[in-house]
Amino acid sequence: MSKGDSQRDSASAEVRLSPASVNRLSLYLRCAESLLREGKTKVSSGQLGQALGVADTQVRKDLTSVGALGRSGIGYGTEELIAGIRRVLGIDREWPAVLVGVGNLARALLRYRGFQQQGFRFVALFDSDPAVVGKRVEGLQVQPVQQIGSVVAASGAKLGLITVPAEAAQAVADTLVEAGIRGILNFAPTVLRLPPGISLVAVNLAVQLEHLAFLVQMGGDSPSGS
Amino acid sequence: MSKGDSQRDSASAEVRLSPASVNRLSLYLRCAESLLREGKTKVSSGQLGQALGVADTQVRKDLTSVGALGRSGIGYGTEELIAGIRRVLGIDREWPAVLVGVGNLARALLRYRGFQQQGFRFVALFDSDPAVVGKRVEGLQVQPVQQIGSVVAASGAKLGLITVPAEAAQAVADTLVEAGIRGILNFAPTVLRLPPGISLVAVNLAVQLEHLAFLVQMGGDSPSGS
Repeated sequence: MSKGDSQRDSASAEVRLSPASVNRLSLYLRCAESLLREGKTKVSSGQLGQALGVADTQVRKDLTSVGALGRSGIGYGTEELIAGIRRVLGIDREWPAVLVGVGNLARALLRYRGFQQQGFRFVALFDSDPAVVGKRVEGLQVQPVQQIGSVVAASGAKLGLITVPAEAAQAVADTLVEAGIRGILNFAPTVLRLPPGISLVAVNLAVQLEHLAFLVQMGGDSPSGS
Repeated sequence: MSKGDSQRDSASAEVRLSPASVNRLSLYLRCAESLLREGKTKVSSGQLGQALGVADTQVRKDLTSVGALGRSGIGYGTEELIAGIRRVLGIDREWPAVLVGVGNLARALLRYRGFQQQGFRFVALFDSDPAVVGKRVEGLQVQPVQQIGSVVAASGAKLGLITVPAEAAQAVADTLVEAGIRGILNFAPTVLRLPPGISLVAVNLAVQLEHLAFLVQMGGDSPSGS
């Protein structure tokens, strides 16, 4: 669709952010949301920087990129800041998502309130195990993996979470991509090969724990203040 | 202790790795282990690079830092490579670890074979909920959080995993640090403040999913080839 493409292009031209900036924006968002819940209608770059262990100047630079302009001595309007970050991150809308592999990790993810709060909504669950298919988990009936194609197409979901064992992950990823999924959050401890244009974020829990062990061994440096 | 400090200093002097290098080493390790299981006793930088979407030259540079020297046209000995990476990452030993907050995510982590394979062993579980305390989960009895101090000290554990709700995480982290924990893997969606010398790796699942949504919105760039 040419319309979709041109919209995408204008969005790309508008904001070019490094992965580190995107992560910081997510954390500023959390901090601002927490302040708003406490009734704080203004927030300063100093407050955000201190909470995240980031320099004031970096905070102001990051927030300029989302179009938020703080006023000297006053700061940012908390609500406007939240709306600005959500718009830039693309979570000012609803993102239907599907999940494949309904084990303990999947159950934890489905119950994780943080996803729903940020506009992620699970619309379908899949598993290959006949003992799991048909069960209701967090309000959704688990469907057989053979139905990924038709269900994903009908749902319009663009995001897929993979929580299957490593050896099954590539085949699941291929099926999801074929069904129209544009972004994959992979929890399986393996390296996925995906066609160009498909986004991938990998969460490898053993790698994270290894990283921690390495840091402790080296004497306690943290990679960042967060 | 001056002895501990000097050991730490010599280890630091030996290997200085960026967070990105540490993550790549973890992924090379996985790749090499998988090749060894297939009976492959040699592995080339090209194979590793292709599997991970990393340039040959980067692979060779990373592996030189672990003291592995490949031979032209032959490659690296798979077993030696695995041992070298494990030594540099500090996972050529056992790492006792404790976990606080025994919900679904914790159960998934405890069952996750990748941790045990890399030498991480859970020695104690804690929860504040009287309905959970006393239950056996994956072979360990859940203990009350009030006992973190004495149990951690007796176990010699240096790593702690936090899987409690956001609002409880800072207090749990403070208790763990006071008990002697040197590194924290935090899954609670909040920013922890820790004293100097304590390592922190944060796994914020909503941030990861937001990052994915951002990438899909921007038209499908992945931050890396992995």
